[in-house]
Amino acid sequence: MLNISILTIGDEICIGQITNTNVVHISAELTRIGANVLTHSTIGDEKNIMLSEIDRLLKSSDVLILTGGLGPTHDDITKPVLCEYFDDQLIYREQTLENLRKRYSKLNIEMTDRNMRQAQVPSKCISLENSAGAAPGIMFEKDGSYLFSVPGVPGEMRAIMKDHIVPFVKNMIAERNENLVLYKQIMTYGIFESSLADMIGDIDKLFDKGDSLAFLHSFRGVRLRIGVHGESRRDAETKLAVLEQKIQDKVGEYIYGSGEDSIPSAIGKLLTERKQTLAVAESCTAGMLGKEITSVSGSSAYFSGGVLVYSNEIKEKILDVKHDTLVKYGAVSEQTACELAANVRSKFNADYSLSITGVAGPGGGTEDKPVGTVWIGYSDKNETFAKKYFFGGNREINRERSVANALALLYKKLRGK
Amino acid sequence: MLNISILTIGDEICIGQITNTNVVHISAELTRIGANVLTHSTIGDEKNIMLSEIDRLLKSSDVLILTGGLGPTHDDITKPVLCEYFDDQLIYREQTLENLRKRYSKLNIEMTDRNMRQAQVPSKCISLENSAGAAPGIMFEKDGSYLFSVPGVPGEMRAIMKDHIVPFVKNMIAERNENLVLYKQIMTYGIFESSLADMIGDIDKLFDKGDSLAFLHSFRGVRLRIGVHGESRRDAETKLAVLEQKIQDKVGEYIYGSGEDSIPSAIGKLLTERKQTLAVAESCTAGMLGKEITSVSGSSAYFSGGVLVYSNEIKEKILDVKHDTLVKYGAVSEQTACELAANVRSKFNADYSLSITGVAGPGGGTEDKPVGTVWIGYSDKNETFAKKYFFGGNREINRERSVANALALLYKKLRGK
Repeated sequence: MLNISILTIGDEICIGQITNTNVVHISAELTRIGANVLTHSTIGDEKNIMLSEIDRLLKSSDVLILTGGLGPTHDDITKPVLCEYFDDQLIYREQTLENLRKRYSKLNIEMTDRNMRQAQVPSKCISLENSAGAAPGIMFEKDGSYLFSVPGVPGEMRAIMKDHIVPFVKNMIAERNENLVLYKQIMTYGIFESSLADMIGDIDKLFDKGDSLAFLHSFRGVRLRIGVHGESRRDAETKLAVLEQKIQDKVGEYIYGSGEDSIPSAIGKLLTERKQTLAVAESCTAGMLGKEITSVSGSSAYFSGGVLVYSNEIKEKILDVKHDTLVKYGAVSEQTACELAANVRSKFNADYSLSITGVAGPGGGTEDKPVGTVWIGYSDKNETFAKKYFFGGNREINRERSVANALALLYKKLRGK
Repeated sequence: MLNISILTIGDEICIGQITNTNVVHISAELTRIGANVLTHSTIGDEKNIMLSEIDRLLKSSDVLILTGGLGPTHDDITKPVLCEYFDDQLIYREQTLENLRKRYSKLNIEMTDRNMRQAQVPSKCISLENSAGAAPGIMFEKDGSYLFSVPGVPGEMRAIMKDHIVPFVKNMIAERNENLVLYKQIMTYGIFESSLADMIGDIDKLFDKGDSLAFLHSFRGVRLRIGVHGESRRDAETKLAVLEQKIQDKVGEYIYGSGEDSIPSAIGKLLTERKQTLAVAESCTAGMLGKEITSVSGSSAYFSGGVLVYSNEIKEKILDVKHDTLVKYGAVSEQTACELAANVRSKFNADYSLSITGVAGPGGGTEDKPVGTVWIGYSDKNETFAKKYFFGGNREINRERSVANALALLYKKLRGK
């Protein structure tokens, strides 16, 4: 197996000021092609710690990927350290300078000395063109291991990963022609982890020794991750397909996709095929459902829009919920959820609609309707109904779970269940 | 300085399936009280790697915090490893079992053998009560360093951090009575990093040697992070206050808060004080603005609601945008943005309104209005206007930046600028 380590440089990550999303991308991309990500390590902008961590990780992995410290704000921290470690010095390369000049002239910005320094690279490295920014990536070889250094700016890191590192690692794996591990994710919805496990049954009977099935729970459903060892890429891919089919046979009705699929994209696919439309009425989620639905490119083909009915007054005035309904049953009720769903569907002239009305918290809870109580309404040309949920989490969790359950409800109806 | 290392256990993080948000919380909480977070390390569920990583990190830090591997799905990976490392064995403690029994009886769930095993702890450890879940936290001491092991479930990790680890580390720092580093974040909006840096001027003149000022850019504005060394907590806090005042004097008009403040919470504070209300009309962002505004608890006091006018038909039908306007100027235009803002304000009977209409991409761009073109409208009782923006990013970035700029526009108006 080809072992990867990822080293992130940056005080802002060490002290918890920002979330390290770069490692997620790098790990996912390299795992996808069959590499084995051994470890993530994060350290601050400190020369001696960087030197010892580079040495430790480079010696224990085939490929070390270093992010951060190449940008314009932290400039010149990573490059001098790499020069010290590889006993090298910074130089200008004509090709890199030329790329940088072209870049600045295109953007109509004058190139300053400070900008120019971004083109400097250690003389013994291979420099990797950065199609998304000024600072080139850097590659070194030492004792058969490879070090890549990329900027911490996500767009630039992604560009260098795609253009250089992923193809390079893929090639290394192919040349080694040895065992590799491939993963595949299967996305399920509307079922608990424990029930899925029961339906799938004894994993040892389905899977070879060494292959694995992991369950990963989230509000959006349970992800199943199949992992297989193969003697070659083709061998591993065949095994993956066979195991996926076995899982499909057992729990197919709860599967909506694989890999990067999401419920909103699965809904979008069905609505686009059928040339049908959707509208929403949101109270406690106040736009989260609309945001999710429109996170899919091309959603304008099927999403008409919606109303954020945050106050009772607006529920009455804009979506014609009856005053009596609000007085008699309250805003968080089956009746209100149904009226919201039915009325937004007719006003927006849509084929389907969803409504969400609940007590997100922290305030607003009562004995009858404690924080976490949510009604989700559904309407199509044949029927209108609402379902009651109790999430019992904090504000953020109650809102997240409301959206997840509304989307699952619609998807289930669209699949005809 | 008291040095902290954080070790995360979990294949799902190594392979990039999920984002490690636990380290963000742990790092931020411990940095806040003056500890120095040296490193984050993530490894898979593998015994030998765990043993060597625990040994390496415990030897190089005062406190090692281990997350993951205590939950019900990955059960029994971390605990046996800790037993092996500390030459110990698992036992039941009556107090922990009793807590677990109470917990299950409260939830009205029968306690199985599998559940009961969650109460097992190594015999030489101190077990830490978990107020948010079944698995207790674990604490060991070795050669003057401390190891804490907490579940990977975010809510449980947070509970044990708050109840046990933060107070313990705070106490260690106080007892050591030595130099510590404190940080403070100052939140700015509506100004570029480079302009802020120019206005603040030469940092060496403002700050003592060793103290630091870092700039962290995001779509939501630039965060300034002040870091100071102090001989005691009081000394460091005083220095922080003095430096904050210096920064305030230089760029106060761009500051909206500190620490965990956000523009939506700053807007909410002003609107609540003034007993005024807000409505929104969203096209390309389709709920993201509403979501942000209502992420603040208590937003029902000032947020009336809004309309997701995703299609042209809905812009006309629900918010009375003139048909002529849409034909003559298009949906992404100053005129449409103004009509949306003015009409949603009057329909929702609100004091203020915002509208967003733009080309988020990837489709829909033209030569005149390329992907990334966005108009943001504003309306109050005195005026209605719209501003044009060009973000030129991908769908996600264009939508994010639209929301950030709409919020900044409103906040600026509310502050009377």
